[in-house]
Amino acid sequence: MQNVAIRTINFKGLLVGVLAGLTLVTAMPAIAETSLEASAARMESRIKALSQFGRNADGGVDRVAYSEADLAGRAYIIEEMKKLGLSVTIDATGNILGKRDGTEPDLHPILFGSHIDSVPGGGNYDGDVGVIGALEVISILQENTIQTRHPLEVVIFSDEEGGMPGSIGMSGMFDPELLKTESHAGFTIAEGIVRLGGDPTRVSEADRTGELHAFVELHIEQGGLLEEKGLEIGVVEGIVGIRWWTVTATGMANHGGTTPMPGRRDALVASARLIMAINEIATEAEGRQVATVGKIQAFPGAPNVIPGRVEFSLEIRDLDSARIQQVFDMVKAEADRISTEMEVSFDFDAPTTDLLPAPTDERLRQLIAEAANELGFSYPLMPSGAGHDAQNLATITPTGMIFVPSRGGISHSPQEFTAPLDMARGAHVLYRTVLKLDEQVFE
Amino acid sequence: MQNVAIRTINFKGLLVGVLAGLTLVTAMPAIAETSLEASAARMESRIKALSQFGRNADGGVDRVAYSEADLAGRAYIIEEMKKLGLSVTIDATGNILGKRDGTEPDLHPILFGSHIDSVPGGGNYDGDVGVIGALEVISILQENTIQTRHPLEVVIFSDEEGGMPGSIGMSGMFDPELLKTESHAGFTIAEGIVRLGGDPTRVSEADRTGELHAFVELHIEQGGLLEEKGLEIGVVEGIVGIRWWTVTATGMANHGGTTPMPGRRDALVASARLIMAINEIATEAEGRQVATVGKIQAFPGAPNVIPGRVEFSLEIRDLDSARIQQVFDMVKAEADRISTEMEVSFDFDAPTTDLLPAPTDERLRQLIAEAANELGFSYPLMPSGAGHDAQNLATITPTGMIFVPSRGGISHSPQEFTAPLDMARGAHVLYRTVLKLDEQVFE
Repeated sequence: MQNVAIRTINFKGLLVGVLAGLTLVTAMPAIAETSLEASAARMESRIKALSQFGRNADGGVDRVAYSEADLAGRAYIIEEMKKLGLSVTIDATGNILGKRDGTEPDLHPILFGSHIDSVPGGGNYDGDVGVIGALEVISILQENTIQTRHPLEVVIFSDEEGGMPGSIGMSGMFDPELLKTESHAGFTIAEGIVRLGGDPTRVSEADRTGELHAFVELHIEQGGLLEEKGLEIGVVEGIVGIRWWTVTATGMANHGGTTPMPGRRDALVASARLIMAINEIATEAEGRQVATVGKIQAFPGAPNVIPGRVEFSLEIRDLDSARIQQVFDMVKAEADRISTEMEVSFDFDAPTTDLLPAPTDERLRQLIAEAANELGFSYPLMPSGAGHDAQNLATITPTGMIFVPSRGGISHSPQEFTAPLDMARGAHVLYRTVLKLDEQVFE
Repeated sequence: MQNVAIRTINFKGLLVGVLAGLTLVTAMPAIAETSLEASAARMESRIKALSQFGRNADGGVDRVAYSEADLAGRAYIIEEMKKLGLSVTIDATGNILGKRDGTEPDLHPILFGSHIDSVPGGGNYDGDVGVIGALEVISILQENTIQTRHPLEVVIFSDEEGGMPGSIGMSGMFDPELLKTESHAGFTIAEGIVRLGGDPTRVSEADRTGELHAFVELHIEQGGLLEEKGLEIGVVEGIVGIRWWTVTATGMANHGGTTPMPGRRDALVASARLIMAINEIATEAEGRQVATVGKIQAFPGAPNVIPGRVEFSLEIRDLDSARIQQVFDMVKAEADRISTEMEVSFDFDAPTTDLLPAPTDERLRQLIAEAANELGFSYPLMPSGAGHDAQNLATITPTGMIFVPSRGGISHSPQEFTAPLDMARGAHVLYRTVLKLDEQVFE
């Protein structure tokens, strides 16, 4: 894509390179590739089995939360959990928990897993890889008759794609207003929770604050960086914060035929200039922020009328809230310059979406990096540009996230794909991370 | 607005300046201002009377063609015509014709007038000034007991704002398909013509090809040039040609969170660059062309998705078809450059609208300029950026157009306004032009 300078820094004794905006850690050459204990074939077989529930004509799935397909998919996972000896419960917000005893029952459980609900017209890997990966960890433990000190819990969060009520509930942040939200399946979240076997009147009981040792989520990247750079694993530094504004440009509508070019106060031309500036600011400034204008409308919206008003969306994401604000301030300063020169004003409404960044736990990142390193995998430290249940769990327990490559960076599409070997690499890193967490004492 | 260099050229013996893209003729200082024969008070009173028909809460009118308000307005005009001794007929396409005999009945009639139908939510001057101005000409002739050699005909064209079936019919270009078009009032044009007293089965009989001496239309400018430059009269060089394209930019849709800035193929950022370029090309190139992007949509159109496709309108207008093509070629060349640099392709569909420019008759321009000059008015030669019935008449008879100032350049709005004195100046120029035409023998 572009030439990037690679510089190396020291990250807890590992060789680290900062590459194209991501911190890259190359496995020490002295450590040989370990043959995988995770089984690519077994994972692929479970992914294929799961993909039957809600399968659509495009080869993807329509398995939105609370739908019949979601219920059937959950029943399949519960069955697999039981085959692996897990004791299965459903919490009040509809999360599935598959529990395995530890040798020291008083220790807090180590939680890992993801979700199996999809967006409408989704793919077979988003969420699913984390769930199948968690089952794979249990499979390896069973095969090797390993019992951990801490109890283990495999979690399938409810409705990740429709507002994350499952992980929000488990993190003690459930606002009862959320129960009224209509889900993709057409049910309210309250109705949906009932369908899953939960109890919307007792969501506060799902809260696990202070009761967990740690949480780890394996997930597909949903971006193209790992594939592009030929890297096996991503160590997630955190889930980015997201702010959305609606920007309104106001000039003067006028007749497109009778108004000469000089003196026009064209809100769309001014908006075009600002949209280019937004792209340049986010691209050229230091850092890994992203800024997107995804939606635009000109008013009155006729081909022969100079737009007097334009509304467009602005989204800025970064791991650091202060950085989001800095980028926004640069955008606003540029808007002021354009305003003065073109007699078109810009208004930015208060952010309609304002999600705080959720950094992962420094210690978890280190454990995941060690695990990847021991297995001979190259891995960057990278942000997650998309939201995940982990962002909620991070508020109540040390949380880590492991990424595996997405082919072509494509997600939320039937074309979504992660190769069996890549899934197995991720599951093996998850397995080792769980074992390392089992040794860890967090203050 | 901007500093402009004024250079003078010689236009048939008059001092002409080319100013900010329009050819400016300053009245010879030796000629004193003539007291107006046209009555500003009488015109204002007729404008006010007409404005009652379809008056809306904003002080403008909803007098769309074929509506009850249109019928009532036409009845008022017919009544005024009869008071002035005109013999009134309705032609097959619903045009009102008020005829006055000439001393030489074998000569072809001189036609002048405009329309009284409005856009939805329109103002009180668009079209109306030309109609009231034509009545004013008859009033002056009556007061001065002047009889012209040629018969005179005052015309109120039907449905100017909804496709111009009246002037199209009079120019022998009526395609029966047009009868099926639904008008603003909800009637088909066929139904509307019946409501006006015309006969949609006999529209070919409205054709006056070869039967007219000349046509002159007085109209408000609908732009802000005359007011801005402090000029009284515009001598219209012609009605601009109009071409509309739909431009489609195709990049690649992707996740706004997980896709880093470098390597994005953002169809909206590329479109923004082209929209700015279109504005620059039309503004900076020599000539008086205008180019407008009035409508835009991004797909899929979510704030968190990089647009993979953008569609926008492109309109280019100029008096010269070749010039429209040149400007379009410059736009396409820029699109090619952007395509190469940003990996976003641009497609321009075949023009969805393609109206040829309609130049006015050189001799009519000269007569109007002489009339203005004799009255001590400064006047530019200027294009009409908007469409008018005159563009159709220009295809069958020598045609001229006279503009008077629009306050703030505002039109198609209740804020539309032309001062009584400006209307009277226009009517006086029209009166003198009619008298000059009466002397004229066209080859």
